[in-house]
Amino acid sequence: MVDMTEPIQWAVAIHGGAGVIARTMPPEAARVRMERLQEVVSNASAALAAGTAALDVVEQAVAELEEIPEFNAGRGAVLTSEGTHELEAAIMDGSSGDCGAVCLVREIRHPIHLARRVLETSPHVLLAGATAEAMGEDLERVSNEWFTTPLRREQWQQWKDTASAADARGPATVGAVARDHSGRLAAATSTGGRTGKPPGRIGDTPTIGAGTWADDRCAVSGTGHGEAFMACVAGHAVAARMKLQGKALSEAVQEVVGDCLPPGSGGLVAVDDQGRIEMPFNCEGMYRGAADATGRSEVAIWR
Amino acid sequence: MVDMTEPIQWAVAIHGGAGVIARTMPPEAARVRMERLQEVVSNASAALAAGTAALDVVEQAVAELEEIPEFNAGRGAVLTSEGTHELEAAIMDGSSGDCGAVCLVREIRHPIHLARRVLETSPHVLLAGATAEAMGEDLERVSNEWFTTPLRREQWQQWKDTASAADARGPATVGAVARDHSGRLAAATSTGGRTGKPPGRIGDTPTIGAGTWADDRCAVSGTGHGEAFMACVAGHAVAARMKLQGKALSEAVQEVVGDCLPPGSGGLVAVDDQGRIEMPFNCEGMYRGAADATGRSEVAIWR
Repeated sequence: MVDMTEPIQWAVAIHGGAGVIARTMPPEAARVRMERLQEVVSNASAALAAGTAALDVVEQAVAELEEIPEFNAGRGAVLTSEGTHELEAAIMDGSSGDCGAVCLVREIRHPIHLARRVLETSPHVLLAGATAEAMGEDLERVSNEWFTTPLRREQWQQWKDTASAADARGPATVGAVARDHSGRLAAATSTGGRTGKPPGRIGDTPTIGAGTWADDRCAVSGTGHGEAFMACVAGHAVAARMKLQGKALSEAVQEVVGDCLPPGSGGLVAVDDQGRIEMPFNCEGMYRGAADATGRSEVAIWR
Repeated sequence: MVDMTEPIQWAVAIHGGAGVIARTMPPEAARVRMERLQEVVSNASAALAAGTAALDVVEQAVAELEEIPEFNAGRGAVLTSEGTHELEAAIMDGSSGDCGAVCLVREIRHPIHLARRVLETSPHVLLAGATAEAMGEDLERVSNEWFTTPLRREQWQQWKDTASAADARGPATVGAVARDHSGRLAAATSTGGRTGKPPGRIGDTPTIGAGTWADDRCAVSGTGHGEAFMACVAGHAVAARMKLQGKALSEAVQEVVGDCLPPGSGGLVAVDDQGRIEMPFNCEGMYRGAADATGRSEVAIWR
């Protein structure tokens, strides 16, 4: 099937995590999150409209999401079983296939900038801990405690007291995908992981093909139960349906989120080379936002 | 296309790494490597013929390959830039989709047993360093230096002196894939990485979908330039061609090794649900061996 319509010149979608998001959330809490998502979408839209490259836009959008304490990445990341933070991030340029990822990061304020640094300057794809941090000597450093918010400390205490992963299915990640005016696609993802995760656990976010993927047909950023995304290589599973079967993005993501991933495991945001956006999830909610050159601009939490 | 032939009851393929393998290698050195491969193939064949599960067979085969100092995994692993060893391994059960992987391992004699332990007992897929090692408290521990052989020390010294990755394309990994009498498939891979790699570099071996993959149609273990396998999600790319396009294993692996992976980047061993084996590589050589229930039994290095 040949699509004769003109591509949408630019498009962006972001997420602030999928999972169990109570519909009983106080309206004020929902409003704050929606406003923050809207700010990030608006900034990304302005950048894309001004001709900024998709790779730069998704990096910047994720850096902004990392700063928002309500979302689980950067400041406001969840705590490990030891009460510390171990952050991970990845970024991929769909036009070149270049990718960079970092994990077990403890003192770099913006893990996504570190992932970009790996993409730009390292012959490696995935670097952990001190070696990753050494790639960003000029990037801003903070203490590990700087990432902690009172809410995350409280959730961690609750996890410790009950030995149950009460929020283990809570919002898990932030991410962004974009198509720029040149048709280039890019994806970026960043996370603190899961409350109570053991130090050394590496999830889907920095696993190229699982939580983060971009090629010349689609860009995907996942959020949810990381191990489920890893075991079905979710991002690459979307891309493979488009490349190998010629499926539309909408069909590809529905198969992966509906059939490959277990119910309740999460969602993703994705954009294709025509600027079409998809934001499916198979759980209660997903903080998300989207905009494109046609004037579309929206943010949402539930269906 | 419906294949009406009976499946081959069991089949196994192993590798001891692909890369630049000089054809001028002394005949005695080649003979030793061929003999060691043959031993591993013979043991795996006997186990499969006796009804052992594919998952157990690939774990055991990789454990034996880890013991062979000529191959880059376990004892005889290459050294990092710091002159230390950081080992990684993964194992995946195609019938259940369960997988386990470890990286940045320093003192567990058999990383593949640790990966199996993660598969069996952890809710996580990929664990690094001390947390991974703590999963195998009853597994044999050795000092990090125990893994070093004189040859690897010499290669490291050469790397240090010339600041060039002289053997950066040398044999890289060990692995095994098998189909058992019940039609179950499994894959296992283990490596020391690349000489002079920075500590904290994580490669394709423990990345599910890249260097290690198994589902109900195929099992794949890759070897070569890890970053190339990660950027094209090589193992899952083979599986996707079979699942989504109905391609035969032979066609799927030729596309991935011939078209997706850059020339010279490595190879893989793979088996499908009919017991058919493929062992393609796009570089000078690949230490490999294969056997099946029809009486096939072979080992080889070059084409």
